[in-house]
Amino acid sequence: MKIIDGKKISNQIKKEIKIEVDQIIKNGGRIPHLAAVLVGSDGASLTYVGSKVRSCEQVGFNSTLVKLADDISEDSLLEKIQELNNDDEIDGFIVQLPLPRHINEEKILMAVNPSKDVDGFHPTNFGKMALNMKTFISATPYGIIELLKRYKINTSGKNTVVIGRSNIVGRPISILMSRKGNPGDSTVTLVHSRTINLESFTKKADIIISALGVPDFINSSMVKKGVIIIDVGITRVEDESQPKGYVIKGDVDFDSVKEKASYITPVPGGVGPMTIAMLLKNTLLSKSLKN
Amino acid sequence: MKIIDGKKISNQIKKEIKIEVDQIIKNGGRIPHLAAVLVGSDGASLTYVGSKVRSCEQVGFNSTLVKLADDISEDSLLEKIQELNNDDEIDGFIVQLPLPRHINEEKILMAVNPSKDVDGFHPTNFGKMALNMKTFISATPYGIIELLKRYKINTSGKNTVVIGRSNIVGRPISILMSRKGNPGDSTVTLVHSRTINLESFTKKADIIISALGVPDFINSSMVKKGVIIIDVGITRVEDESQPKGYVIKGDVDFDSVKEKASYITPVPGGVGPMTIAMLLKNTLLSKSLKN
Repeated sequence: MKIIDGKKISNQIKKEIKIEVDQIIKNGGRIPHLAAVLVGSDGASLTYVGSKVRSCEQVGFNSTLVKLADDISEDSLLEKIQELNNDDEIDGFIVQLPLPRHINEEKILMAVNPSKDVDGFHPTNFGKMALNMKTFISATPYGIIELLKRYKINTSGKNTVVIGRSNIVGRPISILMSRKGNPGDSTVTLVHSRTINLESFTKKADIIISALGVPDFINSSMVKKGVIIIDVGITRVEDESQPKGYVIKGDVDFDSVKEKASYITPVPGGVGPMTIAMLLKNTLLSKSLKN
Repeated sequence: MKIIDGKKISNQIKKEIKIEVDQIIKNGGRIPHLAAVLVGSDGASLTYVGSKVRSCEQVGFNSTLVKLADDISEDSLLEKIQELNNDDEIDGFIVQLPLPRHINEEKILMAVNPSKDVDGFHPTNFGKMALNMKTFISATPYGIIELLKRYKINTSGKNTVVIGRSNIVGRPISILMSRKGNPGDSTVTLVHSRTINLESFTKKADIIISALGVPDFINSSMVKKGVIIIDVGITRVEDESQPKGYVIKGDVDFDSVKEKASYITPVPGGVGPMTIAMLLKNTLLSKSLKN
């Protein structure tokens, strides 16, 4: 069994990005610039956004954190987004989710100019991805594709089962895995809450990509020998024996499946660290598309 | 075995649309208006477009056929599209495909204003469909969903196999069938040219939707008893005994599977007639979204 080391790969990608940024500076170009909009002061959101800003520093990007009050009106937030859309210094920006309840998330995401939507959440970018056109692919599915590519895992003709049909992971990765190309060209089955006899699908899978958010959901009895497992689940489980009071758990019972799997992503340290690296890659792409 | 009668259902939908149009006229409203752009004089394209125009007349829509020469420049075609985008009298329009080789199809489709893209081919509309937002769904997959709905076929939790991953049928119907809702909530496997052992998937399918374009590809040995078959294949096969010199064949060997299937769409007369009805429905939707 081989560990797919997302931490290592993400650091590698950041180094590659840093080299590109150094080159841009050397050539007298403008430094790539990512902005993040954070509404309110939710703890987890603060952590995520903070880590995005730090990663920008690591690779030499400029970054802007736009912090807005919890009770900002939808109209004011839309105005702020228009400012970012119109700011030529900014290559891409993200609106950290979730947003407060009084704000219509769909309306906000639709307001982001697709050419700056480095999260790849805008329908135009999602559609382009599905139709195999060049675009920003959301960070998490993009990270999964990148891991498969860097570990030279052949996905063509493989029986891939994606668990969970969310807009940000399950749905896009199910499309990416079945598009033409490698990674891709898989025979993909998308299973979800309405699936009957889920095990009958996972047991036949060559590759399982789980984005369910149920800790230890997948165990050894549900998979076949040699399976490749990409675990996208990240759930905090209370554990008083830990200094932080919790542990991070994936969807996969790692100890149970480790003897059967040929490759597996650990949690933490698998898909998680890839997401920020891919967000940075999208920002660099956005800049290059503008030139 | 029950025949899913697309001809009958499409006539029913046209009647329903006619009633809505009569109501609009009665209330002094503007009559819905569909335009079609035809470049060149390809025989099949002429037939399709002609039949779209005739259907407009049947339901009381206004229609405009924009016929352009084979050697029109890309720029002139783009200009024409801008005119249609800006014409407030036109609710929706389509650009009949294929286009001559010197024209970039992707560029043309991207130029259509998504709010008038009643074909649902623009990435913005495709993305909205995939993300479960209100939008224009392409006529063929939309027609399939409508047939399943009108025949009250329960798709929830069913094992659905979609054959073929084209942008206009396989990909979108695979998404629609696995979205939340009914029709929908299926466990969908998308099989394609790279799939290994395709039969192992079709044999377990409760529902098969085939959009491959290979006549008589699916026979009795590949399906299980009670299967529901939606045959999207339409291929002209030469047959000198026929007055036209050809017959239209589906992907499914009808005679072979008819004893095993619980429901089946015939070819012709199944999915085919639905597409124009759904195009008209999209045009009506476009008008209602403008009001």
